Amino acid sequence: MSVQAIILFAHGARDPEWAVPFGIIKQQLQAARPEVQVELAYQDFMTPSLEAAVAQSAARGAQRIVLVPLFMAQGGHLKQDLPLLVAKILEQHPRLDLRVMPAIGDAPEILQAITDWVLRGASA
Amino acid sequence: MSVQAIILFAHGARDPEWAVPFGIIKQQLQAARPEVQVELAYQDFMTPSLEAAVAQSAARGAQRIVLVPLFMAQGGHLKQDLPLLVAKILEQHPRLDLRVMPAIGDAPEILQAITDWVLRGASA
Repeated sequence: MSVQAIILFAHGARDPEWAVPFGIIKQQLQAARPEVQVELAYQDFMTPSLEAAVAQSAARGAQRIVLVPLFMAQGGHLKQDLPLLVAKILEQHPRLDLRVMPAIGDAPEILQAITDWVLRGASA
Repeated sequence: MSVQAIILFAHGARDPEWAVPFGIIKQQLQAARPEVQVELAYQDFMTPSLEAAVAQSAARGAQRIVLVPLFMAQGGHLKQDLPLLVAKILEQHPRLDLRVMPAIGDAPEILQAITDWVLRGASA
Protein backbone atom coordinates (compact mmCIF):
# COMPACT_ATOMS: atom_id res chain seq x y z
CA MET A 1 0.00 0.00 0.00
CA SER A 2 1.43 3.35 -0.94
CA VAL A 3 1.77 6.40 1.26
CA GLN A 4 -1.51 8.24 1.78
CA ALA A 5 -0.30 11.27 3.67
CA ILE A 6 2.93 13.25 3.99
CA ILE A 7 3.19 15.42 7.07
CA LEU A 8 5.92 18.03 7.01
CA PHE A 9 6.93 18.74 10.60
CA ALA A 10 8.71 22.04 11.21
CA HIS A 11 9.92 23.84 14.31
CA GLY A 12 7.60 26.82 14.05
CA ALA A 13 8.29 30.46 14.92
CA ARG A 14 6.46 33.54 16.15
CA ASP A 15 6.84 35.25 12.78
CA PRO A 16 4.16 34.02 10.32
CA GLU A 17 6.52 34.66 7.38
CA TRP A 18 8.82 31.99 8.78
CA ALA A 19 6.47 29.33 7.42
CA VAL A 20 6.62 30.51 3.80
CA PRO A 21 9.37 28.10 2.59
CA PHE A 22 7.54 25.18 4.19
CA GLY A 23 4.37 26.19 2.37
CA ILE A 24 6.30 26.16 -0.92
CA ILE A 25 7.62 22.65 -0.23
CA LYS A 26 4.10 21.56 0.61
CA GLN A 27 2.76 22.98 -2.67
CA GLN A 28 5.53 21.34 -4.68
CA LEU A 29 4.85 17.97 -3.06
CA GLN A 30 1.11 18.32 -3.55
CA ALA A 31 1.59 19.17 -7.23
CA ALA A 32 3.85 16.12 -7.69
CA ARG A 33 1.59 13.74 -5.77
CA PRO A 34 -1.99 15.03 -6.07
CA GLU A 35 -3.38 11.76 -4.69
CA VAL A 36 -1.48 12.12 -1.39
CA GLN A 37 -2.60 14.33 1.50
CA VAL A 38 0.25 16.76 2.18
CA GLU A 39 0.07 18.65 5.45
CA LEU A 40 2.23 20.94 7.54
CA ALA A 41 2.58 20.57 11.31
CA TYR A 42 4.60 22.50 13.85
CA GLN A 43 6.31 21.81 17.12
CA ASP A 44 5.86 25.28 18.60
CA PHE A 45 4.27 28.67 17.98
CA MET A 46 2.28 27.60 14.91
CA THR A 47 -0.64 25.27 14.26
CA PRO A 48 -1.60 22.54 13.64
CA SER A 49 0.42 20.49 16.08
CA LEU A 50 1.75 17.15 14.88
CA GLU A 51 -0.93 15.36 16.88
CA ALA A 52 -3.66 17.44 15.27
CA ALA A 53 -2.24 16.96 11.76
CA VAL A 54 -2.01 13.19 12.20
CA ALA A 55 -5.52 13.05 13.64
CA GLN A 56 -6.84 15.00 10.68
CA SER A 57 -5.04 12.80 8.15
CA ALA A 58 -6.28 9.68 9.90
CA ALA A 59 -9.84 11.06 9.99
CA ARG A 60 -9.60 11.53 6.23
CA GLY A 61 -8.69 7.89 5.87
CA ALA A 62 -4.88 7.91 5.75
CA GLN A 63 -3.43 4.78 7.34
CA ARG A 64 0.07 5.03 5.93
CA ILE A 65 1.77 8.33 6.75
CA VAL A 66 5.29 9.58 6.19
CA LEU A 67 6.43 12.15 8.72
CA VAL A 68 9.16 14.46 7.44
CA PRO A 69 10.96 16.52 10.08
CA LEU A 70 12.05 19.67 8.25
CA PHE A 71 14.84 20.32 10.68
CA MET A 72 18.42 21.02 9.66
CA ALA A 73 19.92 18.43 11.98
CA GLN A 74 19.19 15.88 14.66
CA GLY A 75 19.27 17.40 18.12
CA GLY A 76 17.08 17.15 21.19
CA HIS A 77 13.93 18.02 19.21
CA LEU A 78 14.28 15.05 16.89
CA LYS A 79 16.14 12.59 19.09
CA GLN A 80 14.16 13.06 22.30
CA ASP A 81 10.98 15.09 21.85
CA LEU A 82 9.81 13.62 18.54
CA PRO A 83 10.03 9.90 19.50
CA LEU A 84 7.97 10.63 22.61
CA LEU A 85 5.42 12.52 20.53
CA VAL A 86 5.28 9.73 17.93
CA ALA A 87 4.81 7.12 20.68
CA LYS A 88 1.93 9.14 22.07
CA ILE A 89 0.37 9.50 18.61
CA LEU A 90 0.66 5.76 17.99
CA GLU A 91 -1.13 5.11 21.25
CA GLN A 92 -3.97 7.28 19.97
CA HIS A 93 -3.86 5.69 16.49
CA PRO A 94 -2.58 2.14 17.03
CA ARG A 95 -3.33 0.95 13.49
CA LEU A 96 -1.41 3.75 11.84
CA ASP A 97 1.69 2.99 9.76
CA LEU A 98 3.76 6.08 10.61
CA ARG A 99 7.26 6.28 9.19
CA VAL A 100 9.63 9.05 10.25
CA MET A 101 12.22 10.32 7.77
CA PRO A 102 15.62 11.57 8.95
CA ALA A 103 16.57 15.24 9.21
CA ILE A 104 17.32 17.30 6.12
CA GLY A 105 20.99 17.41 7.10
CA ASP A 106 21.14 13.62 6.95
CA ALA A 107 20.54 13.72 3.18
CA PRO A 108 23.84 14.05 1.28
CA GLU A 109 22.07 15.44 -1.78
CA ILE A 110 20.59 18.30 0.25
CA LEU A 111 23.93 19.09 1.89
CA GLN A 112 25.45 19.19 -1.60
CA ALA A 113 22.65 21.49 -2.81
CA ILE A 114 23.38 23.82 0.11
CA THR A 115 27.11 23.72 -0.61
CA ASP A 116 26.51 24.54 -4.29
CA TRP A 117 24.17 27.40 -3.35
CA VAL A 118 26.74 28.88 -0.97
CA LEU A 119 29.44 28.60 -3.63
CA ARG A 120 27.25 30.46 -6.12
CA GLY A 121 26.36 33.09 -3.52
CA ALA A 122 29.95 33.57 -2.43
CA SER A 123 31.02 34.06 -6.05
CA ALA A 124 28.30 36.58 -6.89
CA MET B 1 38.33 41.54 -4.65
CA SER B 2 37.00 38.07 -4.11
CA VAL B 3 35.60 36.64 -0.93
CA GLN B 4 38.23 35.70 1.63
CA ALA B 5 36.12 34.00 4.24
CA ILE B 6 32.81 32.16 4.38
CA ILE B 7 31.24 31.92 7.81
CA LEU B 8 28.44 29.40 8.16
CA PHE B 9 26.15 30.59 10.94
CA ALA B 10 23.94 27.94 12.53
CA HIS B 11 21.50 27.94 15.43
CA GLY B 12 23.45 25.53 17.64
CA ALA B 13 22.10 22.86 19.98
CA ARG B 14 23.00 21.08 23.20
CA ASP B 15 23.69 17.82 21.36
CA PRO B 16 27.18 17.85 19.76
CA GLU B 17 25.98 15.51 16.99
CA TRP B 18 23.62 18.25 15.85
CA ALA B 19 26.59 20.03 14.24
CA VAL B 20 27.59 17.11 12.01
CA PRO B 21 25.74 18.21 8.82
CA PHE B 22 27.17 21.70 9.15
CA GLY B 23 30.66 20.23 9.43
CA ILE B 24 30.05 18.33 6.19
CA ILE B 25 28.95 21.51 4.40
CA LYS B 26 32.04 23.25 5.73
CA GLN B 27 34.30 20.46 4.43
CA GLN B 28 32.64 20.49 1.01
CA LEU B 29 33.04 24.25 0.73
CA GLN B 30 36.65 24.11 1.88
CA ALA B 31 37.42 21.40 -0.69
CA ALA B 32 35.82 23.48 -3.45
CA ARG B 33 37.47 26.75 -2.40
CA PRO B 34 40.76 25.90 -0.67
CA GLU B 35 41.91 29.54 -0.82
CA VAL B 36 38.94 30.75 1.23
CA GLN B 37 38.70 30.51 5.01
CA VAL B 38 35.56 28.53 5.79
CA GLU B 39 34.37 28.67 9.38
CA LEU B 40 31.37 27.63 11.42
CA ALA B 41 29.74 29.87 14.01
CA TYR B 42 26.75 29.38 16.27
CA GLN B 43 24.07 31.51 17.82
CA ASP B 44 23.59 29.41 20.95
CA PHE B 45 24.93 26.40 22.82
CA MET B 46 27.99 25.89 20.61
CA THR B 47 31.17 27.82 19.92
CA PRO B 48 32.56 29.88 18.35
CA SER B 49 30.04 32.70 18.42
CA LEU B 50 29.60 34.73 15.26
CA GLU B 51 31.55 37.59 16.81
CA ALA B 52 34.46 35.28 17.64
CA ALA B 53 34.45 33.69 14.18
CA VAL B 54 34.47 37.06 12.44
CA ALA B 55 37.23 38.33 14.74
CA GLN B 56 39.30 35.24 13.95
CA SER B 57 38.77 35.57 10.19
CA ALA B 58 39.62 39.27 10.34
CA ALA B 59 42.74 38.53 12.41
CA ARG B 60 43.82 36.13 9.67
CA GLY B 61 43.48 38.92 7.14
CA ALA B 62 39.99 38.43 5.71
CA GLN B 63 38.40 41.75 4.76
CA ARG B 64 35.63 40.42 2.57
CA ILE B 65 33.42 37.90 4.33
CA VAL B 66 30.23 36.15 3.30
CA LEU B 67 27.99 35.20 6.20
CA VAL B 68 25.67 32.28 5.45
CA PRO B 69 22.83 31.74 7.94
CA LEU B 70 22.15 28.01 7.80
CA PHE B 71 18.60 28.45 9.03
CA MET B 72 15.58 26.94 7.32
CA ALA B 73 13.66 30.18 7.23
CA GLN B 74 13.64 33.84 8.20
CA GLY B 75 12.15 34.39 11.64
CA GLY B 76 13.13 36.45 14.64
CA HIS B 77 16.66 35.01 14.69
CA LEU B 78 17.47 36.25 11.20
CA LYS B 79 15.23 39.30 10.94
CA GLN B 80 15.87 40.80 14.37
CA ASP B 81 18.77 39.19 16.24
CA LEU B 82 21.19 38.80 13.33
CA PRO B 83 21.05 42.41 12.03
CA LEU B 84 21.78 43.66 15.56
CA LEU B 85 24.68 41.24 15.85
CA VAL B 86 26.03 42.23 12.44
CA ALA B 87 25.77 45.92 13.34
CA LYS B 88 27.73 45.25 16.52
CA ILE B 89 30.37 43.30 14.59
CA LEU B 90 30.73 46.10 12.03
CA GLU B 91 31.30 48.56 14.87
CA GLN B 92 34.14 46.33 16.01
CA HIS B 93 35.46 45.83 12.45
CA PRO B 94 34.46 49.00 10.55
CA ARG B 95 36.53 48.20 7.45
CA LEU B 96 35.05 44.76 6.96
CA ASP B 97 32.98 43.98 3.87
CA LEU B 98 30.44 41.60 5.42
CA ARG B 99 27.67 40.31 3.18
CA VAL B 100 24.78 38.28 4.61
CA MET B 101 23.14 35.64 2.44
CA PRO B 102 19.43 34.83 2.80
CA ALA B 103 18.07 31.77 4.59
CA ILE B 104 18.25 28.32 3.03
CA GLY B 105 14.49 28.36 2.55
CA ASP B 106 14.79 31.47 0.38
CA ALA B 107 16.70 29.47 -2.26
CA PRO B 108 14.26 27.85 -4.74
CA GLU B 109 16.86 25.25 -5.74
CA ILE B 110 17.20 24.05 -2.14
CA LEU B 111 13.44 23.89 -1.64
CA GLN B 112 13.26 21.82 -4.82
CA ALA B 113 16.05 19.53 -3.55
CA ILE B 114 14.08 19.04 -0.33
CA THR B 115 10.88 18.34 -2.27
CA ASP B 116 12.68 15.78 -4.47
CA TRP B 117 14.20 14.11 -1.41
CA VAL B 118 10.80 13.85 0.30
CA LEU B 119 9.28 12.39 -2.88
CA ARG B 120 12.01 9.73 -3.03
CA GLY B 121 11.64 8.98 0.68
CA ALA B 122 7.85 8.78 0.49
CA SER B 123 8.10 6.35 -2.43
CA ALA B 124 10.66 4.09 -0.78
